[in-house]
Amino acid sequence: MGYKEDVQERALIARIRKLAGQHGGRLRVSIGDDCAVWKPDPGLETVITTDQLVEGVHYLSGSPGRALGARLVGRGLSDIAAMGGDPRLAFLNVAWPATLPERWCLDFLHGFATEARRWKTAWAGGDVSSVAGPSVASITMIGETPKGGALLRSGARAGDLIYVSGKLGARPRKITPRLALGKALRGVATACMDLSDGLSTDLHHLCDESGVGAVIEAKRIPAAGKSLHHALNWGEDYELLFTARVSTRVEARIASVPITCIGRCTRRGVLIEDAAGHRAPMEPRGWEHFS
Amino acid sequence: MGYKEDVQERALIARIRKLAGQHGGRLRVSIGDDCAVWKPDPGLETVITTDQLVEGVHYLSGSPGRALGARLVGRGLSDIAAMGGDPRLAFLNVAWPATLPERWCLDFLHGFATEARRWKTAWAGGDVSSVAGPSVASITMIGETPKGGALLRSGARAGDLIYVSGKLGARPRKITPRLALGKALRGVATACMDLSDGLSTDLHHLCDESGVGAVIEAKRIPAAGKSLHHALNWGEDYELLFTARVSTRVEARIASVPITCIGRCTRRGVLIEDAAGHRAPMEPRGWEHFS
Repeated sequence: MGYKEDVQERALIARIRKLAGQHGGRLRVSIGDDCAVWKPDPGLETVITTDQLVEGVHYLSGSPGRALGARLVGRGLSDIAAMGGDPRLAFLNVAWPATLPERWCLDFLHGFATEARRWKTAWAGGDVSSVAGPSVASITMIGETPKGGALLRSGARAGDLIYVSGKLGARPRKITPRLALGKALRGVATACMDLSDGLSTDLHHLCDESGVGAVIEAKRIPAAGKSLHHALNWGEDYELLFTARVSTRVEARIASVPITCIGRCTRRGVLIEDAAGHRAPMEPRGWEHFS
Repeated sequence: MGYKEDVQERALIARIRKLAGQHGGRLRVSIGDDCAVWKPDPGLETVITTDQLVEGVHYLSGSPGRALGARLVGRGLSDIAAMGGDPRLAFLNVAWPATLPERWCLDFLHGFATEARRWKTAWAGGDVSSVAGPSVASITMIGETPKGGALLRSGARAGDLIYVSGKLGARPRKITPRLALGKALRGVATACMDLSDGLSTDLHHLCDESGVGAVIEAKRIPAAGKSLHHALNWGEDYELLFTARVSTRVEARIASVPITCIGRCTRRGVLIEDAAGHRAPMEPRGWEHFS
């Protein structure tokens, strides 16, 4: 089964080790052992997320490797941001077909390494395998938040106002994880999540976890273009969706990101109100995952 | 791109959530949020490993789902055991083709959940995607070891004796992770790793990380069958390979597992000595990964 003494795989692993760099500080052991060894800060809690990029599902075959490697890191970072966390460690598993050009693989790894380093995240391990089909890349990202300080999806209450950061529906080529914003929302937001599947779907997730409903005003949604459909359903915004008590002052810009109030939490139902004041159920038309 | 509002995916996620069970204790938040939230024990260190099972590479198409789900957990647990750790959390990412029978997927998830629970490991999250090709499943496992107490690959010194647990080359259908043995080796072993790629390859990894050589006596290798080749190169033993000082007393059974001394560390070269006393380089003929 599989590759034995595969020279290309060996070379790849050597490159990964070089790209990942030295361990140090609280990362006591990194690539090269059975596990990474991490010394957690006793005053903090650990937050962990995993995500995937699958060829033909999340991107088209032939997309540039470097951008995809960076994108996978960005998706992990966006989840850490949504918890109000600081990213610490990243792990990368890849299943790559032997037909994939070596240059593409190295570009992907470079993109991954560069984006992780940019956000002060140590590449601490992973796994390489072959596959006779589409490429699958999987990230695990580990971060830290103050004890009891993580921003959860479950803290919204009826009456809370609903906010989003940035503009929706633009499908940016590059993810700018809202890490500074997430940290600034500690103690401000009652619930928070990142917008990866599209507002129409993600708001349902937040409402489900909090046991509330919502009414969104269509005219308030900060759509990047003219299409409300794109802003609601396209997904891959990587902005933050959060709630706060009516009595909490929420600035129009936080950590240099524009913040827009788009509606309010109710007791049940997730509705969208048009310019004429008509309300209709907001159908979740974005992506579905479990995180 | 991909599945939107895919009913089958939704149902799968609901099943996963049910299978994974409630969070609690130090796992403050689990499936359903952007990240899991974990309260690390301030007296311990965190160990983290990732691994993959790829259809057509690690198993044949049509292999039973339940055994594979359990196997993926077993592989993660074996890495935690090799560090002398206690397993705590497991995360599962899957990329599954739509052609895969739902029954198979549920079996896989059941196998994963049951094996995790058996070893007191909480299923804390993951991701589900479709793929137009072979199945890829990826695990992240998080464990804990005493501060500075993790068994590393890098601690062997020339003169140390080399040991393996159990029998090699049997390719057991079911992985029995050597968790109790790993913990018993804290303060005993100078270096340790699990045998997943085959002794001939794994011993090179240990020697590389420790900066030592080794001489193995072929006649001492506890082969499960008559074939030395299988014992050296088949891999997937999930036994522990470890070293200890000559002055350290190592019992013939530890945590109910037979322990065999197979050789000793030298300054350089990885050699195997046949019954007649002839030494030859031990070629790494097992699997290659990076961990």
